[in-house]
Amino acid sequence: MNVLGIIEKKKSKKKLTKKEIFYIVNGYIKKEIPDYQMSAFLMAVTLNGLNKKETIFLTDALVKSGTKLEFSDLVDKHSTGGVGDKTTLLIAPIVACLGLKMVKMSGGGLGHTGGTIDKLEAIQGFRVDLDHGEIEKSLSEIGVCLIRQLKDLAPADKKIYQLRDVTATTNSIALIASSIMSKKIASGAKVLVIDLKVGRGAFVKNKKEGLELAKLLKEIGKHYQIKVICVLSRMDEPIGYCVGNGLEVIECLDFLKGDFDQDLYDLVVELTSELVSNYQEITFAEAKKEVIKVLEKKQALLKLQEIIENQNGEIDKIMVSSKKQIIPSPTTGYIKKIDSYQIGQMVKQLGGGRQKVNDKIDYGVGFIIHRKIGDFIEKGEPLVTVYYQDKDLAIKDILNSFTFSQESVNKKSIVIAKI
Amino acid sequence: MNVLGIIEKKKSKKKLTKKEIFYIVNGYIKKEIPDYQMSAFLMAVTLNGLNKKETIFLTDALVKSGTKLEFSDLVDKHSTGGVGDKTTLLIAPIVACLGLKMVKMSGGGLGHTGGTIDKLEAIQGFRVDLDHGEIEKSLSEIGVCLIRQLKDLAPADKKIYQLRDVTATTNSIALIASSIMSKKIASGAKVLVIDLKVGRGAFVKNKKEGLELAKLLKEIGKHYQIKVICVLSRMDEPIGYCVGNGLEVIECLDFLKGDFDQDLYDLVVELTSELVSNYQEITFAEAKKEVIKVLEKKQALLKLQEIIENQNGEIDKIMVSSKKQIIPSPTTGYIKKIDSYQIGQMVKQLGGGRQKVNDKIDYGVGFIIHRKIGDFIEKGEPLVTVYYQDKDLAIKDILNSFTFSQESVNKKSIVIAKI
Repeated sequence: MNVLGIIEKKKSKKKLTKKEIFYIVNGYIKKEIPDYQMSAFLMAVTLNGLNKKETIFLTDALVKSGTKLEFSDLVDKHSTGGVGDKTTLLIAPIVACLGLKMVKMSGGGLGHTGGTIDKLEAIQGFRVDLDHGEIEKSLSEIGVCLIRQLKDLAPADKKIYQLRDVTATTNSIALIASSIMSKKIASGAKVLVIDLKVGRGAFVKNKKEGLELAKLLKEIGKHYQIKVICVLSRMDEPIGYCVGNGLEVIECLDFLKGDFDQDLYDLVVELTSELVSNYQEITFAEAKKEVIKVLEKKQALLKLQEIIENQNGEIDKIMVSSKKQIIPSPTTGYIKKIDSYQIGQMVKQLGGGRQKVNDKIDYGVGFIIHRKIGDFIEKGEPLVTVYYQDKDLAIKDILNSFTFSQESVNKKSIVIAKI
Repeated sequence: MNVLGIIEKKKSKKKLTKKEIFYIVNGYIKKEIPDYQMSAFLMAVTLNGLNKKETIFLTDALVKSGTKLEFSDLVDKHSTGGVGDKTTLLIAPIVACLGLKMVKMSGGGLGHTGGTIDKLEAIQGFRVDLDHGEIEKSLSEIGVCLIRQLKDLAPADKKIYQLRDVTATTNSIALIASSIMSKKIASGAKVLVIDLKVGRGAFVKNKKEGLELAKLLKEIGKHYQIKVICVLSRMDEPIGYCVGNGLEVIECLDFLKGDFDQDLYDLVVELTSELVSNYQEITFAEAKKEVIKVLEKKQALLKLQEIIENQNGEIDKIMVSSKKQIIPSPTTGYIKKIDSYQIGQMVKQLGGGRQKVNDKIDYGVGFIIHRKIGDFIEKGEPLVTVYYQDKDLAIKDILNSFTFSQESVNKKSIVIAKI
C-alpha cells in the first residue's frame, strides 16, 4: 500500500478500503505522509466524495487516532456555527436540571463566528481546562461541565481540520460529517443533538444540502449506537440580540431570567427537548413541557450560576466594555435583512475575534442588536449599540449590514426541518 | 488576491484570470505559497480542468519564471516517454545532416522509462552539461548538440512537476501540455515534432485522449508562433530491440549502419520527415525522400559520431555489462504481447534506472529483446538476453512479460495518427 496509489484511486472516483483510509490518516499523524500529499487527497475527496462506508472508515480512523472518554450515558450537542450562537450556555444548564449528564467540549472561535470557549473566558476566573478528575467530580456533583476540547480526543481530526482550512477543502459533506462525529464518538455521547445552520452565512447553503449532511451524521451515529437528531435552523441573521463574548453571556443570564429573544428561545427549547425526549424516551411534547417548566421556575438560571461557580468563574465579573455608542436607525420601516457574516466580521475588527489561532481577543467588545428581522423601527430609535475598546467602526459600515423595507416583513420560523 | 480564493474558484469549476494564474505560479516559486496549497490547487485543476485560455496563461507563467534561450530558428522534438525510446539519438543526427539546427535538451529517467541523458552518459566521457558558449559553438560547427535540460529554463515547471509526481496529479491534459510547451518555448524552437505515446504503458491511454492533448499542444504552439506536429504512436511494446542505457546507444549505431527494427525505423522516419517538411516548407514525401537518402548514405551515422566526439564522448567505450544470460523461449509460437511497463521496471531492478532523483545507475545493464510482437519463435530459441551486474532477475519474471499465441498475430503500424 502506498499513499500515491490511494490518492490516485480517489482521484479516479474509486472506493477506498478501510485499510487504505487508516493508512493515510495514521501516516499523516505520524508525519510519514506530508501535508502536500494529504491536501491533494483532501481535494480529491472534496471533489469526488466518499460514500457512507468510506465516511464511517474515516470517522473510525479519526476516533482511533486518540483516546476515548470513559464516561457513559452522556448527552451532547453540536452546532455547525453561527454568529451570536450561545445555545450551549443555555442548553447545558437546562438538561442538567432534568438529570441528563453533559461534558460539553468546545473550541475557540476562528473565522467569522465566535467560539463557546471565548464566551466562557469572558467570565473572569472561569476555568475551561479541567483535568479528568475535575470533570468526573463536576459530573457527579452538578451533572455538567463546559470545557475546552481535550487534546487527546481525535487528534487527527484537529490536524486535518487545520489543513482543510488553508486548502479550500472545508465544504465536503463527508469531511464535515466525519470531523463532527469523531469528536462526539470519542467523548462518549449517547444522545446527540446537532444544530445545523442553513443559510448564506453558514457553510450549508440550503435545506437540500442540510438534509444530506444530516442523513450522513445520523448514519454514522447509528453505526456507533449514538442517537443523533439533526435540527436544521435558519442562519440569516445573528442568533439572539447580542454578538460578542461578554455580551452574549449577559444575554444568556437575561434569557434564563425570562428576558429573551423569541427565535433564540424557540431554538433552545427545540434542541433541548429533543435531547430530553430521546434520552428519557418520552414524547417530544412531554419533554418540551418539562423544559419549559425548568425555564419558568428559573431552575436553569440557578444551574448556570452553579456551573460558573463550580469552574471558578465570578458571575458578577463578566467582561463588557465601558465604551459604547448607540447607533440610531437612519429610517423608519421594517428590518428586512441583517448580514450576519458582516456582523461577525465587525466583531472581529473590534478585537472580539481571532485572525490567527494564537491572537489575543477583547472579550468586552461587540454589538447589541435592538431590532431583528421583521421588527418595526422609527427613524432615530436605537438600532445597534456598539461596545468598543481600542478600535472603533465606521457607522456607515454598521448600517450597511441592515436592509430596511417600507412594507412589513414576514418572519419565518427559526427551525426549518428536523430529522 | 489570495491563494485560498484561487483554489476555491478552480474547485468550483470557475475560470481563472491571467493574474490569478501568475499569482499562484510566482508565489509558489518565491515560496510564499507552500507545497500543500499548490498540491490542493493541482488536484482541483486535474479534476476540473483548465480551458485553452487558462492553459496558455499557465504556460506563459511557467516560461516567464525563467530565462529564454536566444537561438532562433531551431527545430526540436519531444517524446511523452516510452520504454526503449531512443529516437532522440537518431533524429538529431539525421536533421543535422539536412541543415536543420537542434539544441536538444533532455532529462534523466525517473519512473519506468529511461531518460535520454542516461543513455548519453553511457558513452564514456560524454559531456551533457555544455555552457552557453559551447552550445553556440556546437550549433555553428556541427548544427546540433544533445544536452541536459538547462536549469534556468522554466524553473517553475520543474518545481511543479516534482510536486505533481508525488501527489497523483500527473495525468491532467492541461498540466501536461503547459509543462511540455513551456520548456520548448523557452528553448526557442520554431518547429516542434511531438511523439505522443499511446497505450497501456503510456499516460495517454487511447487515441481520443491523445488527439485531445495533441490539439491543445498545437493551440499553445500557435499562440507562440511555433509549428507543432503531433505524431501519435503505439506504445504496447518496447521501442526497438534494446532497453537499457548502453545497449540502446549500441542499437542506435547499428540502426544508422543499416541494421534496424522496422517499427523504430518507421517512427524515426515519420518524426524526422515532419520536422524537415515543416522547416523547409517542402512536402512530406519530398522530406521523407531526403531523410531516407541521409540514412542510406550513412551520413547520419557519421553525424552521430561527430556529435559524440564534439561532446567528448568515446564512441568505442559504451558501457555494456560483460555478464549476460540468454533466456530461451519456453514455447513455439507467435509473440502476442510484451509488457513494456514490466520490462521498464525490470531494467530499474537491475540497477539501470532510478527510484529517487539522486540514485546512481548502472549504465551497462538491460535487455536485448530478440523477438517483437507478431514474430514467430521456436521453443529454445533466444527470446531475451539479459545484461546484469550486481543484481539478477528471476527468469520466471522475465518470461511473465511475454504472452505467446499459437495463431499468427497481426501487427499494427506504429504510427496511429498525425495532426
